[in-house]
Amino acid sequence: MCEPKGISKSEEKKAYILQQAYELFVEKGFYAVTMSDIVERCEISRGGLYRYYTSTEQLFRELIRRGGEADQADFGVKMEQGVPFADILEGFLEMQHDELKQIGSSLTQAAYEFFLAHREAEDRKLLRDRHGDAGQLLSGLIRYGIERGEVAAIAEKQAAAAAEHLLVCLEGLRILALAADLDEHFFKTQLEFAAYALTGGTQP
Amino acid sequence: MCEPKGISKSEEKKAYILQQAYELFVEKGFYAVTMSDIVERCEISRGGLYRYYTSTEQLFRELIRRGGEADQADFGVKMEQGVPFADILEGFLEMQHDELKQIGSSLTQAAYEFFLAHREAEDRKLLRDRHGDAGQLLSGLIRYGIERGEVAAIAEKQAAAAAEHLLVCLEGLRILALAADLDEHFFKTQLEFAAYALTGGTQP
Repeated sequence: MCEPKGISKSEEKKAYILQQAYELFVEKGFYAVTMSDIVERCEISRGGLYRYYTSTEQLFRELIRRGGEADQADFGVKMEQGVPFADILEGFLEMQHDELKQIGSSLTQAAYEFFLAHREAEDRKLLRDRHGDAGQLLSGLIRYGIERGEVAAIAEKQAAAAAEHLLVCLEGLRILALAADLDEHFFKTQLEFAAYALTGGTQP
Repeated sequence: MCEPKGISKSEEKKAYILQQAYELFVEKGFYAVTMSDIVERCEISRGGLYRYYTSTEQLFRELIRRGGEADQADFGVKMEQGVPFADILEGFLEMQHDELKQIGSSLTQAAYEFFLAHREAEDRKLLRDRHGDAGQLLSGLIRYGIERGEVAAIAEKQAAAAAEHLLVCLEGLRILALAADLDEHFFKTQLEFAAYALTGGTQP
């Protein structure tokens, strides 16, 4: 019934190029990476790269888009499996904590460089869409918690605001993790604090 | 008894240079501003500038430090005057909302550029200190609210975490205001949400 989707040679090649570009952006940030760096890292010809991607901007946008899709898939599967809300939330916060601890090995620095400098409508829309998707994902999780009786019933509008609130906190924690050396305890406390706001509870 | 402090000619000159540099950083961000731009804007000689400041980094750090002192003074005066906690908080949030709406005319973009690129211990310490000062200021305000009976009594540790939480949210809202075009309503809702967390209340 459910056969694995065939992955074409060209999709495989794109995935390979994206992975190499990802590693370069993590290492050097957005600005310092050139198309020549990517050619060299991929060990392909210039034409071989340009057939798929013509600029570092295009590559970066594609990485941002694919990152969003991966997040979405993970959440959906757990809810379908009936995993308790509290466990999904805990797993999500642990993942966020791990990401904050290893922020230097993520795309975050490059993403801030990219989005602070690229003020074109297309990029603002990309970021807004990503933000909107993440918000819908989290408010979906809150509604799932309400349905399971694990979260106090709150109005739909509040579920959306609570989800946005967590996203705003995560954004703040990321920029602080990158720019200031705050200790692990700080991030743990703040993630817990944000989780309480998410679930409609009072402070821990 | 309380004579106004004399402001020396050299302090006056420094304040003038800082104001001009501030305007340039707001207009162009951190990277695009050179010492020559500042000489030109101030209409002084190169020697006249270098007598006080030898790099754009030094100027920027000084602006960040002075910005923090100005915040502190404002809060303290209101608490001494016995202004109700709710009014101080509302004023603070309105100011934050105004700053978010006009984020393009603030030092914020330049500050992110500066702190994301300057990873030296000195700059991380400067940002950590600024963050710590702001946290103490806000937890002082929460304690003031508790003393006046306007805020439910919470443990000292929680006051600090609640203050940090608001700072983290503000940081997140700033980066989103700069990088994505989110509407005014979004910022208003999120500031209200954050305020409830600050005062130990549940969601609005």
